[in-house]
Amino acid sequence: MDDAGTIVEGDVAVADGRIAAVGPALEVEAPRSVDARHGAVLPGLVNAHMHECMERGIFEDLAFSRWLDDYALPKDRAYEPRHERAAALLNQLEMIRNGTTTFIDIFRYPDEAAEVARTSGLRAVFSPQVIDTPAGVGESLESNIGFIERWRDREPGRIRTWFGPHALYSCEPATFERMASLAVEFGVGIHTHLAESRAELRTIDARTGLTPAEYLDRLIGHVPQTLVAHGVHLSDDDITLAASRHWAVAHCPTSNMKLGNGAARIPALLEAGITVGLGTDSIMTNNNLDLFEEMRQAALVQKLVLDDATVMPCEQVLRMATRGSAAALGWAEEIGSVEVGKRADLIVVDLRRCHLWPLLAGNLVAQLVYSASGGDVRTTIVDGRLLMDDGVVLTIDAAEVEELVHREARHLLEKAGILRG
Amino acid sequence: MDDAGTIVEGDVAVADGRIAAVGPALEVEAPRSVDARHGAVLPGLVNAHMHECMERGIFEDLAFSRWLDDYALPKDRAYEPRHERAAALLNQLEMIRNGTTTFIDIFRYPDEAAEVARTSGLRAVFSPQVIDTPAGVGESLESNIGFIERWRDREPGRIRTWFGPHALYSCEPATFERMASLAVEFGVGIHTHLAESRAELRTIDARTGLTPAEYLDRLIGHVPQTLVAHGVHLSDDDITLAASRHWAVAHCPTSNMKLGNGAARIPALLEAGITVGLGTDSIMTNNNLDLFEEMRQAALVQKLVLDDATVMPCEQVLRMATRGSAAALGWAEEIGSVEVGKRADLIVVDLRRCHLWPLLAGNLVAQLVYSASGGDVRTTIVDGRLLMDDGVVLTIDAAEVEELVHREARHLLEKAGILRG
Repeated sequence: MDDAGTIVEGDVAVADGRIAAVGPALEVEAPRSVDARHGAVLPGLVNAHMHECMERGIFEDLAFSRWLDDYALPKDRAYEPRHERAAALLNQLEMIRNGTTTFIDIFRYPDEAAEVARTSGLRAVFSPQVIDTPAGVGESLESNIGFIERWRDREPGRIRTWFGPHALYSCEPATFERMASLAVEFGVGIHTHLAESRAELRTIDARTGLTPAEYLDRLIGHVPQTLVAHGVHLSDDDITLAASRHWAVAHCPTSNMKLGNGAARIPALLEAGITVGLGTDSIMTNNNLDLFEEMRQAALVQKLVLDDATVMPCEQVLRMATRGSAAALGWAEEIGSVEVGKRADLIVVDLRRCHLWPLLAGNLVAQLVYSASGGDVRTTIVDGRLLMDDGVVLTIDAAEVEELVHREARHLLEKAGILRG
Repeated sequence: MDDAGTIVEGDVAVADGRIAAVGPALEVEAPRSVDARHGAVLPGLVNAHMHECMERGIFEDLAFSRWLDDYALPKDRAYEPRHERAAALLNQLEMIRNGTTTFIDIFRYPDEAAEVARTSGLRAVFSPQVIDTPAGVGESLESNIGFIERWRDREPGRIRTWFGPHALYSCEPATFERMASLAVEFGVGIHTHLAESRAELRTIDARTGLTPAEYLDRLIGHVPQTLVAHGVHLSDDDITLAASRHWAVAHCPTSNMKLGNGAARIPALLEAGITVGLGTDSIMTNNNLDLFEEMRQAALVQKLVLDDATVMPCEQVLRMATRGSAAALGWAEEIGSVEVGKRADLIVVDLRRCHLWPLLAGNLVAQLVYSASGGDVRTTIVDGRLLMDDGVVLTIDAAEVEELVHREARHLLEKAGILRG
């Protein structure tokens, strides 16, 4: 993940959940080894924005008002912890399969989702999605505080707890203000949506006369770890402000395309020194959690909107999905690269897949970004623990998830009146 | 592929290479059966524009002039039939794996590529890429005619031969004119690139004062089967002209994004009644041949550029990659849907992949378009012949291709002076 390049043939030694040595032909005594031959060993990918839900492929190709009124709100009002457990299992199974080792989830019933992560073995930040308006479709300031108190020390080093105010238009100003002071007090971060759509800009302007970035700054002041999702519609002044506040941005190009929201000005953000991570957003708006496809999209969408094939080269995109996302979650020291002393969060991409050929002239990164997909990952390791070994997920029972997700999704949609029994 | 919808549980009976019956619980005597349980049976996908080359991931993120002068032209001058054989094997192996059953190839040494298709079992149109200027980097009018004469009856019904003038700026007017009259005489089609880039518009305008569409019309008149790739920069008048001439358009959204060329006006083309198929373009500009990813991109890019989540719904995109592409190749009567009497070109998508869950409320098409990838295909059948069975390709030896492609790609790049031995 740095300019020193790729070790063409080598080993990674792991001890006590951390990387102990990296290099060609290491001589180590190991009780166990993972065969990574014909594979590329990478740091696990890090998803900087997603919601663990399960309504994939059900409300598609709809205008926003119809999507919201006829589907999203009725579904959200019907949502129960049992649904979130199924959703978390589905999402974490998929992430283990596609080589994502760390994610930040902003959604409902975080105790359920965190409990799934406790056993799945993935590394995660949970920022409960707090929504004041409309009532009854999200977490509350109080439930967010309660979750932090219950979980902040339960899986130290692997599960972190943040504040998750949904957005400036759905939370009261007082909610943001209170979270900002508590975030500093608790030493945790804040994750929110910012400048995602043109409608948001109009709403915030009508209420405050400010841009969303200016308004967020007025409400939260300086919170050391602030991660805003999307940032599609940031002005030059907003970008200067975001950089001065050290806000990180989670770039979600597929979701922004799918909802017709536009393309974030990523080269300008990077130029301003802003930390940018890569996120899939939820499986309602992506519709999968495949960060390989998302890397490709991040490169393509900039080339399209800037009419320039040279912008967002593949090396920059791979850094965004690893080091960038890791830094966006405040985890830059621990994950995001294969370096001695960092956590052993590693994936193996199977290079025997013909769509990755030929491999020569140092083109591995290009093949990974422009041609691979999550299905090419064969091994996933977090903290030195095997979560998937040669295509077999070890910590989640896929057959059980298949049955559970279909039952719970049907229950949810029937309860919401969307699906008739 | 039609409005009648999906058969939730059913069988497909095949006899003599054609679909003999489709429906729930068919009672037939069959000497052999393919287990498609937990799978979706679809018509094989049809790639309406690609070049069978092998320089994947090697010349990336470059400005066009540097790409052309330093890489593409030296590589094209060094290209030999041995390289094309390796390229065709790589590309056809990948297509069998990702569920593409028919493709149109516009590239070099078509005898080599067609010979590979003869044994791979895929259905294909070969339109040798004729380039007059610069000399020595493409086929010629004479070699195109010779190829048609050698191959037009060699694999009747499965391999077709067309004319492939590369583009208006790289072929002489006389080449287009002669091909047009021969295409009518031989009863074959013409495949060319049209209105791909802004540079092409400027070049053709400077030479002729016409748009590329107007100029093509002037040169070829009415050729019954004309397929133009890209069509990114077509004016309203061009679209009216293309519709009146019954030109089909091959839409290649990923390639257009990657090269910074823009987004074709697909809703306007469809509105005008133009046949639109879906293509990947080559593995230099995509960088894979995955039509599942391309379907997703076709939906996303329109939603982005039109700021409208409702345009290009998933059902329309799936039709484009099947019926649309089939019609673009003049094969609408034979392939593109699972219908009695059509060729038995079928694929099975494995629905046990967790990123396709949940499956309910008739959301299969949404899952296929917005979440699937080519790696989810487990079985590929052409003319009733199994080319891949449960993930194992039967007609091409993948290990042999791996060795061959690496040797030949290295040979080509060293010969071209791009790679030092």
